[in-house]
Amino acid sequence: MHGKIHRVATKLFVVCALVAGHRVFAADPLPSWNDGATKSAIISFVEKVTTPGNKDFVQLADRLATFDNDGTLWCEQPMYFQMMFAFDRIRETAKDHPDWEDKEPFKAVLADNLASFGETGQKGLLEVIEVTHTGMSVEQFHGIVRNWMHTARHPRFHRPYDQLTYQPMHELLVYLRSKQFETFIVSGGGIEFMRPWIPDVYGIPTQQIVGSSGVVKYEVHDGKPELLKEPKVNFIDDGAGKPVGINQFIGRRPVMAFGNSDGDREMLEWTTEGEPDKHLPGFALIVHHTDAVREYAYDRDSKIGRLDKAWDEGVKKGWTIVDMKNDWKVIFPPESAK
Amino acid sequence: MHGKIHRVATKLFVVCALVAGHRVFAADPLPSWNDGATKSAIISFVEKVTTPGNKDFVQLADRLATFDNDGTLWCEQPMYFQMMFAFDRIRETAKDHPDWEDKEPFKAVLADNLASFGETGQKGLLEVIEVTHTGMSVEQFHGIVRNWMHTARHPRFHRPYDQLTYQPMHELLVYLRSKQFETFIVSGGGIEFMRPWIPDVYGIPTQQIVGSSGVVKYEVHDGKPELLKEPKVNFIDDGAGKPVGINQFIGRRPVMAFGNSDGDREMLEWTTEGEPDKHLPGFALIVHHTDAVREYAYDRDSKIGRLDKAWDEGVKKGWTIVDMKNDWKVIFPPESAK
Repeated sequence: MHGKIHRVATKLFVVCALVAGHRVFAADPLPSWNDGATKSAIISFVEKVTTPGNKDFVQLADRLATFDNDGTLWCEQPMYFQMMFAFDRIRETAKDHPDWEDKEPFKAVLADNLASFGETGQKGLLEVIEVTHTGMSVEQFHGIVRNWMHTARHPRFHRPYDQLTYQPMHELLVYLRSKQFETFIVSGGGIEFMRPWIPDVYGIPTQQIVGSSGVVKYEVHDGKPELLKEPKVNFIDDGAGKPVGINQFIGRRPVMAFGNSDGDREMLEWTTEGEPDKHLPGFALIVHHTDAVREYAYDRDSKIGRLDKAWDEGVKKGWTIVDMKNDWKVIFPPESAK
Repeated sequence: MHGKIHRVATKLFVVCALVAGHRVFAADPLPSWNDGATKSAIISFVEKVTTPGNKDFVQLADRLATFDNDGTLWCEQPMYFQMMFAFDRIRETAKDHPDWEDKEPFKAVLADNLASFGETGQKGLLEVIEVTHTGMSVEQFHGIVRNWMHTARHPRFHRPYDQLTYQPMHELLVYLRSKQFETFIVSGGGIEFMRPWIPDVYGIPTQQIVGSSGVVKYEVHDGKPELLKEPKVNFIDDGAGKPVGINQFIGRRPVMAFGNSDGDREMLEWTTEGEPDKHLPGFALIVHHTDAVREYAYDRDSKIGRLDKAWDEGVKKGWTIVDMKNDWKVIFPPESAK
């Protein structure tokens, strides 16, 4: 009886594979990537670690891939989108705060004066985050983020922010998952800012999203339990915080990691060189923004998504570096995709 | 062609279901549980939320179940096993610390004087955790825990600690996963103490283990990146910290939660009453330790795993309460199981 099941199962698998796109993957799993060294590096690594018998074969349970978000999976210019959100919230709620007109950093935000805002430094930034991101329940905050995603538009591309994701990276996420990788977000962005939209947009569930966070407090009011966002930083998932966040949330080293800036350097280093006793292979990739026409071009001198030390380390250590202009056929998904 | 695939697939499904145990589950998914109200409550809830068309049907993506560990999935007497580990480590490393002979809390530990140790309070506890759990890399600590699991034996049952897990709860984990629930640990225990052994013992991967943690720091020494355990508390995943930990790591409310003590009260409350706008059903279960012969009997007056406020709330709100002595046919897995 088992022999028969096996034969039926094999037949079914072959038929399904042909119909459901397996043949398409075999032909080209990354159609929006131009052929060349970058695409080859990705595919040959994935093939190597997923081919049984290969000396670098990685068991299913160890197939973890971590992705930065800002500048790696979606655009981060002219400013991190979470800051665009915060500024929009300042404008929307200003009528309830008449004192903001003469009070920095709010005055600068309301006057669209980024230079003045920049002068308020870390303190100004934290004040803006505090008034826009705290003093409410996690659930209420998610509702505000969802509403903003529906209504706000990017100043240059005039599209909802969650449509300014990178089509080639979508294909990479799907490709890795088709090879039984678990895909995680490991972003400096706020965890509660990402969770309302990332599951639908990238197909990554909330429990696979690691990010920065504020302190959250459990309280029961009138018998109704709530999680309240407090005005206090809990964890910054950036730079050396990324391997720490990976360790805390995932508990194992990724086999592949994807980033675009110096904030990703330690994650890429940890992925390729961490835990030497385990002998797991590691792959690191940097998205280099080189396309001012279709998106933006920036690296060493950018205040947003600076790519300097990570670039040098990547070149020295042979990490894969994407030249956006030459490696990607398209940048964003087609408008009709959503 | 699609019609044929569908017919083959249907046939295959029916055959596999009969062969691979679907019929066995239909007969009794929880063979180590005595028939009665407790077992019925579990099964009828699971059937309800996994039957398409039922008004309480829960989508696959929302099927999350969270389990406390100490006293819920494994034994916690005569003391939390992580403390047994810490005390063993104090004894093993005492030869390198001659000053401990006259210095509390180490003196009390070395003299097996639990009363004196108790008098050193929170401060003594943190000192023991600091010398046994920090000042090394995460990887080194995992190695020490693994070694202890292989060599240490429980004082009463003379078995490795990771064999003193509850057979009926193993069946519950397998049952829920067969119904496409994702099973998570949400424990007051240390996350790095749990991760080396839980994946093998419960079939729960590291990224589904939430627990208390210390601060971890990323450092590169001689080109080798390491995660170092620092002597500073990061997060206590207990009491009101459990819904906070669930929110931070998982990002959604569980549909089912399992605990045994007052430290689980808020998690059970959050699971059954949190996020009212989502209208997800919620199920809460408390393991009540009533079996002094086969395990231990304790509740309101116990220093370890006290069950007092959570019991009252559970009775009032109709949570399912396991009477270990009467509900469980066996406590631990058979010796040959490992």
